[in-house]
Amino acid sequence: MSNFSLKAAENLQKIRETKPLIHNITNFVVMNYTANVLLSMGASPVMAHAENEVEDMVTFAGALVLNIGTLTDDWVASMILAGQKATALQKPIIFDPVGSGATPFRTASAQHIIDKTKISVIRGNGSEILSLGGQQPASKGVDSLHSVQDAAATASLLAKELGTVLAITGPIDLVTDGSRVLNISNGHPLMPYVTGTGCSATATIGAFAAVDADDLTAAATALAFFGLAGEMAGKAAKGPGSFMIHLLDALYSMTPDQLEEGCRINEG
Amino acid sequence: MSNFSLKAAENLQKIRETKPLIHNITNFVVMNYTANVLLSMGASPVMAHAENEVEDMVTFAGALVLNIGTLTDDWVASMILAGQKATALQKPIIFDPVGSGATPFRTASAQHIIDKTKISVIRGNGSEILSLGGQQPASKGVDSLHSVQDAAATASLLAKELGTVLAITGPIDLVTDGSRVLNISNGHPLMPYVTGTGCSATATIGAFAAVDADDLTAAATALAFFGLAGEMAGKAAKGPGSFMIHLLDALYSMTPDQLEEGCRINEG
Amino acid sequence: MSNFSLKAAENLQKIRETKPLIHNITNFVVMNYTANVLLSMGASPVMAHAENEVEDMVTFAGALVLNIGTLTDDWVASMILAGQKATALQKPIIFDPVGSGATPFRTASAQHIIDKTKISVIRGNGSEILSLGGQQPASKGVDSLHSVQDAAATASLLAKELGTVLAITGPIDLVTDGSRVLNISNGHPLMPYVTGTGCSATATIGAFAAVDADDLTAAATALAFFGLAGEMAGKAAKGPGSFMIHLLDALYSMTPDQLEEGCRINEG
Repeated sequence: MSNFSLKAAENLQKIRETKPLIHNITNFVVMNYTANVLLSMGASPVMAHAENEVEDMVTFAGALVLNIGTLTDDWVASMILAGQKATALQKPIIFDPVGSGATPFRTASAQHIIDKTKISVIRGNGSEILSLGGQQPASKGVDSLHSVQDAAATASLLAKELGTVLAITGPIDLVTDGSRVLNISNGHPLMPYVTGTGCSATATIGAFAAVDADDLTAAATALAFFGLAGEMAGKAAKGPGSFMIHLLDALYSMTPDQLEEGCRINEG
Repeated sequence: MSNFSLKAAENLQKIRETKPLIHNITNFVVMNYTANVLLSMGASPVMAHAENEVEDMVTFAGALVLNIGTLTDDWVASMILAGQKATALQKPIIFDPVGSGATPFRTASAQHIIDKTKISVIRGNGSEILSLGGQQPASKGVDSLHSVQDAAATASLLAKELGTVLAITGPIDLVTDGSRVLNISNGHPLMPYVTGTGCSATATIGAFAAVDADDLTAAATALAFFGLAGEMAGKAAKGPGSFMIHLLDALYSMTPDQLEEGCRINEG
Repeated sequence: MSNFSLKAAENLQKIRETKPLIHNITNFVVMNYTANVLLSMGASPVMAHAENEVEDMVTFAGALVLNIGTLTDDWVASMILAGQKATALQKPIIFDPVGSGATPFRTASAQHIIDKTKISVIRGNGSEILSLGGQQPASKGVDSLHSVQDAAATASLLAKELGTVLAITGPIDLVTDGSRVLNISNGHPLMPYVTGTGCSATATIGAFAAVDADDLTAAATALAFFGLAGEMAGKAAKGPGSFMIHLLDALYSMTPDQLEEGCRINEG
């Protein structure tokens, strides 16, 4: 058992005990599944995007999760409003730049959110992370055309430049703050066949960041927990449909001891 | 068997025979699950929120369901437009004040909808119902910090004042029109772990109100039906994921006889 | 084995190999399920509706799917913008006129989209197709009050007039380009009890049209594939909940050989 395994178990225990409120401003496709993921693990999700209320709502939250999966200008404005309030209150902000690099609008919106708020963790796939580093990766919609390793160097530079933790997910996830690098090898090959698993991993980081002041271990232990639940789900699944349902069951029933046992986080 | 059990069975039978159209203006998180809940029980859901069409759509409906879970100003305007048309046509309006009390915007919007339309049934949790009574309950996002009993007196007063049925849901649900009080003890502990079970209970009241002119028995029998389906689902479930799927199966397969048998409504 | 069965198997094989990007501008109710349907079969979905990016996004797409299930004016404007770009790039556009005929706003919006873009396939139920022919069918929300046969003649006329393939779905689906008529008898009675099965069938046509230049066979083989997956799902299902999950599993696990074997497309 590494220190990371112990930390993962502790974080899960704290989520179950304190049920942190996670304020999500996220995309239409994954709202339902993201809420169910957070509820299943023991957190308390709220989705609220109106400019009239996001600053009030984030005040109660343990973390703010921003996701540009189906963005429009007014939603980006709300994300920045909520993000600036969270910044002022020193609450962790977790950002998912869905499709950044695929269209100029997404890349510019992602950059704008990063510039205007103090983000704790950015989670994306290889192509998305590369696009944030100012590169214009060949891209196809919201799927990555780049491996985790392709984006590792950019992630490290960005992490230092922004003072933010970068998490790149793929078969083996990489989390870095620019100096330390962690690899997380939990996960299952059916995950990319269910919409919103990436977005839900981001929300899971939100729940872990709400109980863990170290953004690096929060991100790494969240991804290990989510990935291990995927492994459990994969054993019983017959395809993406049953996988996504078993995944919710696993997030609910996994004990801190099981997480400590199954967690695979290694220093890179 | 009480009269309520018979009434519950009759209402379910009528829904299956007449397939009432239920017009929902609801939140993004629960739209899919709410539609599946209504379809599974035998009703016909439609979601439509454009100001250009809500008055036309509600004309065909057996009931209108309004839900402020992810509200913005333009959605509230559409709710009022649809609600005023439903009021003029004397169609039942069921209102779910999601998160009322959590932010001033939600509390004010809920109040505005109540003021501008003639609502048949309001369903909420303890904190939401207390907020409608002018109290400012400590609140955390959209989860209740108050028990059903905490809000019972406020519900009774509001019911009389507004001429509306109030339904507070929790481990034991309470339904009142200000003079009569009914307690419904059907339900399952996994319900709060699935997003949209409260919102779907509200939509279920819509289907029952479309076939039952007595708003009090419509609300109570709907909650008994939904809760009993939860009990059936709970027997086979391994967590929130399988629970939400079994719940849809139970809403579909439950017979009126099974509902008459399992329904637990008592006068308070 | 007919030529259609071979074509169906070939198309499925091509989707699995090329993973075409399908750009959806669709309704809030079905976004999640539609994305999961496309992912399960091996395609790559993206949902994007902002006027700032739809033209960029559709450039990468193998097909564009437009669906007016929860339409507003700004969404219709984005659909037309994306549709005109797809028209210029000669990419297939698949259109689902959800609820056309139910309200004047829906009928007019459907007509507007048809007028302004070059659509390859229109898929709807009987009432929706009749409404596109200028008739004002008695309608109830988004459910059809007309059989496939009721709308067959109108579909044939429209197909000729618009130079478009028309697909009417029901117990037996009908696909026509105005001269040829195909009947597809795959399917399952639980399909209408799950929201978004019609919309997902439309998206499936998008995936097949991305790999098959003949819009008629693309539509017919897509409906056979989707219907056969429904038959497989129905064998294990206990109701609409388990059906919709097994359907995703079947879309994922069905082999081209199984599709060739089970496909039931006949010339009308």
